Amino acid sequence: MGREAVLAPPARAYLHDAAEGRGLRGRLDAVVLPASAEEVARVVAWCYAHGVAIIPRGGGTGLAGGAVPLDGGVVLGLERLRRLRSFEPLLWRIAVEAGMPTAELRRRAREGGLFFPPDPGAAEQSQIGGNIATNAGGPHAYKYGTTGAWVTGLEFVLPPGELVRLGGPIRREAAGYDLKSLMVGSEGTLGVITAAWLRLVPAPEAAYPVVGLYPSAEAGCAAIEAVLGSGIQAAAIEYLDRGAIRFAAAGLPVPAGPGASFLVIAEADGVAAEAHRIRTELVEILGDGALATAAPTEAAPIAALWRWRSGVSPAVRARRGAKVSEDIIVPVERLAEAVEATVAIGARHRLEACSWGHAGDGNLHATFLIAPDQPDELERAELAVSEVFALAAGLGGSISGEHGIGWVKRGQLERVWSPAALALHGRIKAACDPLNLMNPGKKLATLG
Amino acid sequence: MGREAVLAPPARAYLHDAAEGRGLRGRLDAVVLPASAEEVARVVAWCYAHGVAIIPRGGGTGLAGGAVPLDGGVVLGLERLRRLRSFEPLLWRIAVEAGMPTAELRRRAREGGLFFPPDPGAAEQSQIGGNIATNAGGPHAYKYGTTGAWVTGLEFVLPPGELVRLGGPIRREAAGYDLKSLMVGSEGTLGVITAAWLRLVPAPEAAYPVVGLYPSAEAGCAAIEAVLGSGIQAAAIEYLDRGAIRFAAAGLPVPAGPGASFLVIAEADGVAAEAHRIRTELVEILGDGALATAAPTEAAPIAALWRWRSGVSPAVRARRGAKVSEDIIVPVERLAEAVEATVAIGARHRLEACSWGHAGDGNLHATFLIAPDQPDELERAELAVSEVFALAAGLGGSISGEHGIGWVKRGQLERVWSPAALALHGRIKAACDPLNLMNPGKKLATLG
Repeated sequence: MGREAVLAPPARAYLHDAAEGRGLRGRLDAVVLPASAEEVARVVAWCYAHGVAIIPRGGGTGLAGGAVPLDGGVVLGLERLRRLRSFEPLLWRIAVEAGMPTAELRRRAREGGLFFPPDPGAAEQSQIGGNIATNAGGPHAYKYGTTGAWVTGLEFVLPPGELVRLGGPIRREAAGYDLKSLMVGSEGTLGVITAAWLRLVPAPEAAYPVVGLYPSAEAGCAAIEAVLGSGIQAAAIEYLDRGAIRFAAAGLPVPAGPGASFLVIAEADGVAAEAHRIRTELVEILGDGALATAAPTEAAPIAALWRWRSGVSPAVRARRGAKVSEDIIVPVERLAEAVEATVAIGARHRLEACSWGHAGDGNLHATFLIAPDQPDELERAELAVSEVFALAAGLGGSISGEHGIGWVKRGQLERVWSPAALALHGRIKAACDPLNLMNPGKKLATLG
Repeated sequence: MGREAVLAPPARAYLHDAAEGRGLRGRLDAVVLPASAEEVARVVAWCYAHGVAIIPRGGGTGLAGGAVPLDGGVVLGLERLRRLRSFEPLLWRIAVEAGMPTAELRRRAREGGLFFPPDPGAAEQSQIGGNIATNAGGPHAYKYGTTGAWVTGLEFVLPPGELVRLGGPIRREAAGYDLKSLMVGSEGTLGVITAAWLRLVPAPEAAYPVVGLYPSAEAGCAAIEAVLGSGIQAAAIEYLDRGAIRFAAAGLPVPAGPGASFLVIAEADGVAAEAHRIRTELVEILGDGALATAAPTEAAPIAALWRWRSGVSPAVRARRGAKVSEDIIVPVERLAEAVEATVAIGARHRLEACSWGHAGDGNLHATFLIAPDQPDELERAELAVSEVFALAAGLGGSISGEHGIGWVKRGQLERVWSPAALALHGRIKAACDPLNLMNPGKKLATLG
């Protein structure tokens, strides 16, 4: 495969991902960086024949530890598979290799007048293959769905080393079992995604954010429900709670007095007239009960707003140097409860807590601040997130809206799935990966 | 379970589905009509304990023979599970039992100002559970996706008789393997769907069809590609080829001279202003190169047009008394080729042939006319559809866009899937239904 394709230990950059703050750092025997799908198949075949674990790795931006080699094996990095295979803008289609950075995919689509809606964070570093393997979300999943909704075809390597193609440049199919959706979100535990055919849509002509600031989570969530109840299709509905507002105060798009306890950003998009119409309705609805609103229409303040929104997570982390954060999902009408319960859970464990996230989808990032040099705080934070998972289950939600299970949520599925479903989860894994060499120890439904 | 829940043979209505024209009629030992999900679980448990085949049945409108008991067993009809479990119009959500007729679901959504987009045919008779089990499509799948895209939660009975719930009133999830999507489109071969939580969207204020008539498939398909290339998001793009136009001439929405060889219906929807804008653009684009166009704006002619469109399939069937029709998928830019090849395949087998379907999705209903009392014609038609599957595979498409595999397409997946994928298909079946009692003989990827 060539000398440049194999890195010997320690290869430190491949020992962790964005879950590093949880104390997760692994051990590897080698890093292999194949340059083609066929080479990926050869790596998997060799590892399968030799009983060596395979840890597929995209951009390493995952927050669940999914890309971390827990106990040796071959880290299979997709970064050299980054070719554009085909782009047919007039047919709203693109085919790319798994290692293409998400931001590059979005840029290329834009250059063709098109839009690839999924927008998880860290777009410059994250890769489309990893986005598919985790079914990544982001703000615009509210209107447009998560990454999987845009995948019309998938190429992947299945143990013991077979290159498989499902679907392609076709918009729908009702043939075999939906193995494509099974691979989407499988976090490298069933196979290695090497390329994808993706649907695109015409780029919205305009997108306007509307910001509202509220005196309480209850008032803010009432505003969100009013948006839904009015029948407006917003492109995104984001929120920050009181703590997140305080920690990310620099660059806040509206002046926040001491009573500011909940911030909502809703976006209107579409052709110019449609985006304007939706914006006007959003301004009216979000203004009702708000302490303040902002609704920029110029490109510069809009870009600044979304840059600030992307910076919320690092800003919160900076508060005490580290954080433990989980991305639960609740039915949207339980959002205010979940927001308040998160803070209460933090208080019980003597931790500052806050949350923000994709309100329209009921997706919270429930977060506990810790100091990196205080192991007891990390311990308390792990207890707190465990209560957060219980909270999500109790509210009729789920343990993850976008980060996946990875290593950090191993076993938590027991809170929301019945024994029969958990057992099927295990049988599906065995059907795809009988030797348990694909990303072992990850996405475990149970610990039993 | 009560006497009214069990029907003894012959129970003729349960021996066939809408694939009857293919000569498919089965044999059953009993029909069981449970009244609750728990009763479904008890039926599956009893059958599984006694080695008896279970044939789940919705409205019996399937075109692939999926609901036909091939060789005895218990037909499990879902028609008594038709309750609305919850409807929260302000949150765009509904939960219904599997036996609710599709038309009733759509009506209820409408009454709440909402829209359930999937619109396969036979909506009064077909049931939402069957739509999910086949991932049913229809014209509006072009903009809105197939049935599976609207399912946020699923309740089903998994062998050997466990009631399982996945998801619920939440809009996204990134937790366990996507077993929900695995059940969607599994055609009753992995479990029995008993209820679903569904997403809805605000009902479009207006929807306007625009019709264009063209002198050739090539010209009509060029018009369709021009719609895509212009960046317009139509709600649906339907077509009829020359034969279908002729056979469904009664009620044709535009005057068709002898040169009329291809008809396109595109729909503009949205809030009133948006629908008008899109309609105007469609009129212009579809008018280019057309022999004639029509673009009704009044409710009555619009309803008449869609009623006529729904009647195309029966009108074609009426031509000679029966037909054999398959719903292949091709990349949209290969549609004209597929349309012309279908007629050529018919000619080779001395059969009148035509096609129509969901052009925007590249979904043809490639159809061969036969007389019901001529077994040799049915034989030739079966050879012809076999060539149609080969055609779809050769054009980079697939063997089904919406009808599924059922019995009539058993083994055809070999044309488009590699051996490794076919083998995994079998292992997934075994992981869910180890005794092969769930709808046996259906959705077979291979005949080996």
